Amino acid sequence: MPHIPLESHLPGITGLLEYRQDSAKPIRELTQILLRGESTLTEGERELIATLVSSRNQCVFCTTAHTAAADILLGESQTCEMVKKDFETAPVSEKMKALLSIAAATQEGGKKVTDSKIERAKNAGATDREIHDTVLIAALFCLYNKYVDGMASTTPTEPAFYQKLGERITTNGYNRVPSIYEQLKKEVV
Amino acid sequence: MPHIPLESHLPGITGLLEYRQDSAKPIRELTQILLRGESTLTEGERELIATLVSSRNQCVFCTTAHTAAADILLGESQTCEMVKKDFETAPVSEKMKALLSIAAATQEGGKKVTDSKIERAKNAGATDREIHDTVLIAALFCLYNKYVDGMASTTPTEPAFYQKLGERITTNGYNRVPSIYEQLKKEVV
Repeated sequence: MPHIPLESHLPGITGLLEYRQDSAKPIRELTQILLRGESTLTEGERELIATLVSSRNQCVFCTTAHTAAADILLGESQTCEMVKKDFETAPVSEKMKALLSIAAATQEGGKKVTDSKIERAKNAGATDREIHDTVLIAALFCLYNKYVDGMASTTPTEPAFYQKLGERITTNGYNRVPSIYEQLKKEVV
Repeated sequence: MPHIPLESHLPGITGLLEYRQDSAKPIRELTQILLRGESTLTEGERELIATLVSSRNQCVFCTTAHTAAADILLGESQTCEMVKKDFETAPVSEKMKALLSIAAATQEGGKKVTDSKIERAKNAGATDREIHDTVLIAALFCLYNKYVDGMASTTPTEPAFYQKLGERITTNGYNRVPSIYEQLKKEVV
């Protein structure tokens, strides 16, 4: 049960973002800019970073939701599964492995992002902006994971819920779409 | 040395927020809403939460900057020093101790925010909104700390720098004030 009363038809982050919409707005905007805005990283690659960090923080809601999004964007589910298990052996580029290693270090603690991890990424062709965005996406998902679990928001167990959420965030992105919330209320009723 | 080239007259978070201003905007807005917006927690109490989390994450830049802000808002420096050392014996209310304990748990990991910590806060008179905001402020400062240290941004050692920064964020808040950046450039030249 959540630590504070949240709308019961809105599990995970969704009820928290509705609870305080003024603080939710910049959180949504930041996510939209970093995960859907212009970037030399694909949307799928950025969802892999979000998923890895959420997985390392053991946030089941965020991990499952962003796995669904990554799988949809990549068109298969093997890559994301392997990234979560051991990204060094996952079927991604050396540049992505280096960036995932930076994301994993950021999750552990900022100072774990060592010069050698940065050097590896630069040697593999990562740009300054890609390195910057990787660290900031990792930091943002630490915010999300701590927010979701720190408030003990509910975690649905049905895979269909996450499939639908994954479709929503790959189709509509992270901005608030009021009609979706109306629809969710009706589905519960 | 920072992992990517940042303006040398802008240490800590300041150079990062200038490096990518489009993502900086919602980060600044979120901070302004949570730390300076309407709340039943004082600005000083909210800066104590920010400082405690930054201190637990061992982020020297953020800890020193928000200590300066808290000290200015509280009109003395003993409380913040004691909060960082052991908030249970600090001269703050039982409600604040309970909220600081929730913030410390959030820093460690969302699942560490136990029912008993929430119960303690509620028994001490904390509202749902205060609990929510405490978790979100703690999560936001984890983002900041990981961003600042993950990018290896520079950490000034002169106390005067943090005093000035503390004055800036208690007077102007967290929104971008372009004239300040112009002034900083001139000071360095």
